[in-house]
Amino acid sequence: MSRKTEDGAIGIFDSGIGGLTVMREIMRILPQENLIYLGDTARVPYGIRSRETVQRYAVENATFLLSQNIKLIVVACNTVSAVGIDAIREITDVPVIGVLKPGARAAVKNTVKKRVGVIGTEATIQSSAYQKEIKSLKNDIDVLTKACPLFVPLVEEGWLEGDIVEAIISTYLSELKESGIDTLVLGCTHYPLLKKSIQRVMGNEVRLIDSAVETARAVRELLHEKGLISSSDKQGYRAFYVTDSPDRFRNIGERFLGCQIQEIKKIQIPYRIN
Amino acid sequence: MSRKTEDGAIGIFDSGIGGLTVMREIMRILPQENLIYLGDTARVPYGIRSRETVQRYAVENATFLLSQNIKLIVVACNTVSAVGIDAIREITDVPVIGVLKPGARAAVKNTVKKRVGVIGTEATIQSSAYQKEIKSLKNDIDVLTKACPLFVPLVEEGWLEGDIVEAIISTYLSELKESGIDTLVLGCTHYPLLKKSIQRVMGNEVRLIDSAVETARAVRELLHEKGLISSSDKQGYRAFYVTDSPDRFRNIGERFLGCQIQEIKKIQIPYRIN
Repeated sequence: MSRKTEDGAIGIFDSGIGGLTVMREIMRILPQENLIYLGDTARVPYGIRSRETVQRYAVENATFLLSQNIKLIVVACNTVSAVGIDAIREITDVPVIGVLKPGARAAVKNTVKKRVGVIGTEATIQSSAYQKEIKSLKNDIDVLTKACPLFVPLVEEGWLEGDIVEAIISTYLSELKESGIDTLVLGCTHYPLLKKSIQRVMGNEVRLIDSAVETARAVRELLHEKGLISSSDKQGYRAFYVTDSPDRFRNIGERFLGCQIQEIKKIQIPYRIN
Repeated sequence: MSRKTEDGAIGIFDSGIGGLTVMREIMRILPQENLIYLGDTARVPYGIRSRETVQRYAVENATFLLSQNIKLIVVACNTVSAVGIDAIREITDVPVIGVLKPGARAAVKNTVKKRVGVIGTEATIQSSAYQKEIKSLKNDIDVLTKACPLFVPLVEEGWLEGDIVEAIISTYLSELKESGIDTLVLGCTHYPLLKKSIQRVMGNEVRLIDSAVETARAVRELLHEKGLISSSDKQGYRAFYVTDSPDRFRNIGERFLGCQIQEIKKIQIPYRIN
């Protein structure tokens, strides 16, 4: 069981590398915090899997993080944030923050036309979690959604710009574009890397919401509120764990994180606590 | 332990649904055989994972099949055929057939210019398994390879034809096209569904090798050779197991198999034998 004190680390997990966009923002605004990142690269992607399987994976990942000294879990994966957070809360009283609520809140604040678009993986969109969250904040907002299954492989392949990329984006987003939304939630941690191309397809009048920024702010608020913020004046440590070979994680991950990754440890999940 | 008698079933596994193209061909030429298919849909895709992880998954899948009454294992996955077959042979003396050797043999038979192209997932191409196999059959054949990571998500999304699909295929295959090959091995069980578009991009002078057909023939030969062919005059049973929700498997799988899938059972891997 973790100790939940201010010197504990923030545990962050994602199905793979996408969550590094969230870690990057947390590093930026909370540099003194210790961070432990787990990427379940042996079972990525989660977005095509059933709710039940995603929940099982979420609990298994959280169990590993809880075996470390952590004070907070950040679910840096939209799919797990949409369907798996309650399952984690059942096994721990360490606070859990997902990327979904902060993104939804920012969308509600931004929309003037009261028409919001949400894009994400199949699992995230099918869960209707963004719709429910936005509606619960403001009932009269129309929420239009679209699953974009090819975006994750595109980003992982490093295809971020160019004619083919924009043609693929157009195929998925043309209906959303014509629907008159003024706000589009990038409901998958991979999508910020396609931001430039998505903005070009959608036009400048549509504001893109990147939930990584919003989630990092929510983390800072919660730590303050619970008296768990680190009082250290040094930069915190950063530890990286993956469930498959570190090589691919490093190559693609540094693009996501925006800086070099030192050591990456490989572990097996389900994790066996000694 | 399986009994290895003629009334045993043929156990087939793949990381997901791609192997159904192989099952389809086995059903066609060996209709009387009992077939058990396992798709490890909770951990698909394998093509982006490390050799070590693919080997572990291969052994875990084979262990499940061996808990049934099977007389032969067909590895209907190029990635596992490239890196995982030896690991399976270490745990059993039931014969194991992969899709790689039959495809390589057909390519060697077909090429006149002695220039063969091979396309597949990252893991398959990085393993150089096709190159080694083709060279071991005929030393003076040039083998040119290319990993095409976006092809699997394209097929799973049902994008099989059209301008965008051909533009993506061209991006990957233009160098191979200009290299003067006369034979192209589709080194991934998903790729036969893109055959039409790949043929259009490559032109009619290039022969595409679909290893599903070749593998089914190799299975028939081996069963004859070992005296394991079924003497039944009725159609064999077909059983389907998956590790994630059957819904997605059924929707996409019927397109691969070319017929309806009745019951699909969900199991958990690693499988615990009672």
